[in-house]
Amino acid sequence: MVLIGGGPGAWDLITVRGMHALQEADVILTDHLGPAPELDKLCDVDAKEIIDVSKLPYKKSVSQDHINELLIEYARAGKKVARLKGGDPFVFGRGFEEVQALAEAGITSEVIPGVTSAVSVPASANIPVTQRGIVHAFTVVSGHLAPGHEKSLVDWEALAKSGATLSVIMGVRNATAIAEALLSGGLASSTPVAIIENGTMDEERVVKTTLGHMGEKTAEAQIVPPAVFVIGEVAGLR
Amino acid sequence: MVLIGGGPGAWDLITVRGMHALQEADVILTDHLGPAPELDKLCDVDAKEIIDVSKLPYKKSVSQDHINELLIEYARAGKKVARLKGGDPFVFGRGFEEVQALAEAGITSEVIPGVTSAVSVPASANIPVTQRGIVHAFTVVSGHLAPGHEKSLVDWEALAKSGATLSVIMGVRNATAIAEALLSGGLASSTPVAIIENGTMDEERVVKTTLGHMGEKTAEAQIVPPAVFVIGEVAGLR
Repeated sequence: MVLIGGGPGAWDLITVRGMHALQEADVILTDHLGPAPELDKLCDVDAKEIIDVSKLPYKKSVSQDHINELLIEYARAGKKVARLKGGDPFVFGRGFEEVQALAEAGITSEVIPGVTSAVSVPASANIPVTQRGIVHAFTVVSGHLAPGHEKSLVDWEALAKSGATLSVIMGVRNATAIAEALLSGGLASSTPVAIIENGTMDEERVVKTTLGHMGEKTAEAQIVPPAVFVIGEVAGLR
Repeated sequence: MVLIGGGPGAWDLITVRGMHALQEADVILTDHLGPAPELDKLCDVDAKEIIDVSKLPYKKSVSQDHINELLIEYARAGKKVARLKGGDPFVFGRGFEEVQALAEAGITSEVIPGVTSAVSVPASANIPVTQRGIVHAFTVVSGHLAPGHEKSLVDWEALAKSGATLSVIMGVRNATAIAEALLSGGLASSTPVAIIENGTMDEERVVKTTLGHMGEKTAEAQIVPPAVFVIGEVAGLR
């Protein structure tokens, strides 16, 4: 089994190795992310079995198990199986869980890294997450759980104090709460913020604001996922 | 001008878009990083002018200006110019400085993102930088300046408190000092560490240790750059 990072969205931001693996596969398990909508630009889709796992008739909680079962089933049937994911499979991609599930079933996996949205989306919008003389660290953080949520593992106040550029993904719904947590951690309300919706794609939209207005601006501009929030001095360089 | 992220080292970890841009270029300015040593696998090198800027007879401090001048000169001569860099051009790659220098000369640039070593090198070694239920954030930080160095912009103690996985690049020389700063910031000496030398390449080597032994292990195993230090619970999952 090969687990492929498909990149941030545009079909040609997959790696050359990823494209070759798709071309060699008998079966491709994909979802609606990364280059999936334009798979025909990367390989001969008519010669393969393509399974869109985002359309499986299962609840969210059980679908990962079902995906793992499908991967194991096809691999045991002797098929060359490719699992295509958006971004990088090991950055909030649950890719490692799939590798573990297959390993438990005695099936080895190869991982092909992908361009992660957390870095490439700002880059495509001409925002460097690091810049000599300004900042030498950046943190990629998931905003899918609100600060203070019982399952949240993120110390937003500590991140505010770290001085690193923050690249927040999956944070649209919690934008206001995230901004408040960072402000109470000590970040200035004037800290530049760039909100990038549909990064690297034709519909890309960039909204500039400051941390003090991040929540209201997200609502006002009607930002929808996928979006990346870049928080820090570099967001003002563009 | 097109600025291309070449990825972490293996020639086929460049993006498809990056490969196409190399194929269309008249002139390629490269250095010794990314897929540069195997450029002939990606395009017809005999049909192009290839300039290895790492071999320019200039001191480090002036060579960036000279690279910028070359880019401007070729672009003004009507050539299709590609600047190939390792990793992602906007992650410690000084790519933004090149874009700025060209913009000041009235030349527009396109940026093609690349797979950054800070994420892909751990992934290739089967280490996820994030993992559901364990950690929802990771920080990429440059270790090229020792903690406490007058030009250092990194607050290592704050990073230690953030709970994020740390992916330290360019940190071989300062491994002992970095470990000490993180320990004094409160990270446990038992925190798992994976040191990955020559990640994604045939010569890849992975050394597992703990934060308490990171410095001595780096010396003992004779780790040389390029190497990535992954610090956090995920480094123990492999």
